[in-house]
Amino acid sequence: MSDCVLCAEDGGALIWRNAAMRVVLVDDAMHPAYCRVIWNAHVAEMSDLTPAEQEAMMRAVLLVEQQMRAVMSPHKINLASLGNMTPHLHWHIIGRWPDDVHFPQAIWGALQRDPTAANLSARRAQLPALQAAVHSALAAAFTG
Amino acid sequence: MSDCVLCAEDGGALIWRNAAMRVVLVDDAMHPAYCRVIWNAHVAEMSDLTPAEQEAMMRAVLLVEQQMRAVMSPHKINLASLGNMTPHLHWHIIGRWPDDVHFPQAIWGALQRDPTAANLSARRAQLPALQAAVHSALAAAFTG
Repeated sequence: MSDCVLCAEDGGALIWRNAAMRVVLVDDAMHPAYCRVIWNAHVAEMSDLTPAEQEAMMRAVLLVEQQMRAVMSPHKINLASLGNMTPHLHWHIIGRWPDDVHFPQAIWGALQRDPTAANLSARRAQLPALQAAVHSALAAAFTG
Repeated sequence: MSDCVLCAEDGGALIWRNAAMRVVLVDDAMHPAYCRVIWNAHVAEMSDLTPAEQEAMMRAVLLVEQQMRAVMSPHKINLASLGNMTPHLHWHIIGRWPDDVHFPQAIWGALQRDPTAANLSARRAQLPALQAAVHSALAAAFTG
């Protein structure tokens, strides 16, 4: 799959990986609380995985959610596996706030307002702590 | 939570329910292959559930995905738990096709084209089979 960006690249700043999957921090100018869990092999859908693989991937997604809530206290968590443009299985974990540029729309929807620079800066300052917490949680939960 | 629509109403045409959750068919004019799995109690996030509850809810979501693929053969499945407007835990399971009005954008994004009426009609004709298949799969997987 040489034309698949998630086969060719990590897809973000690598936080943790094992043989099956990886977690990255996404560099999104408007949504700082944004991680992805990416299955390493090129499969399209959750139902292409075995039940044990599905369970492991969702466990990783929900550990990221849990750490994002603990470190950054977002107003809401958004989870999504879409893959319409990149059909290589990956989950978006996005922390949302009422002042973010798309709230209450999905981040793939229409802009609702201008960004609040001070809030963006304050949230970006928490990203090293988020990365450390996610790494610790995933490393403790998974081996290999 | 008297102002929560998912506490007050089923949230779609009921396909199956047990004590913990329900599955509904969503009446969306542009996206016929659209189900939701809705947690019955008013909780906001997956990480507000116990691990056993999380596992049960995702098992239901993935059974719906599997039946939607079997009956309707969509080009791609989209899964999402957003809840920015209705913070009552629910999953969207949406079958997508390259001719649908939003593809390859999320269904919450900008319109890409006019609908193809013949394809919409053909897909709507499969909904009774989808409802039957989802009901059977969920009833077999869960009790109570």
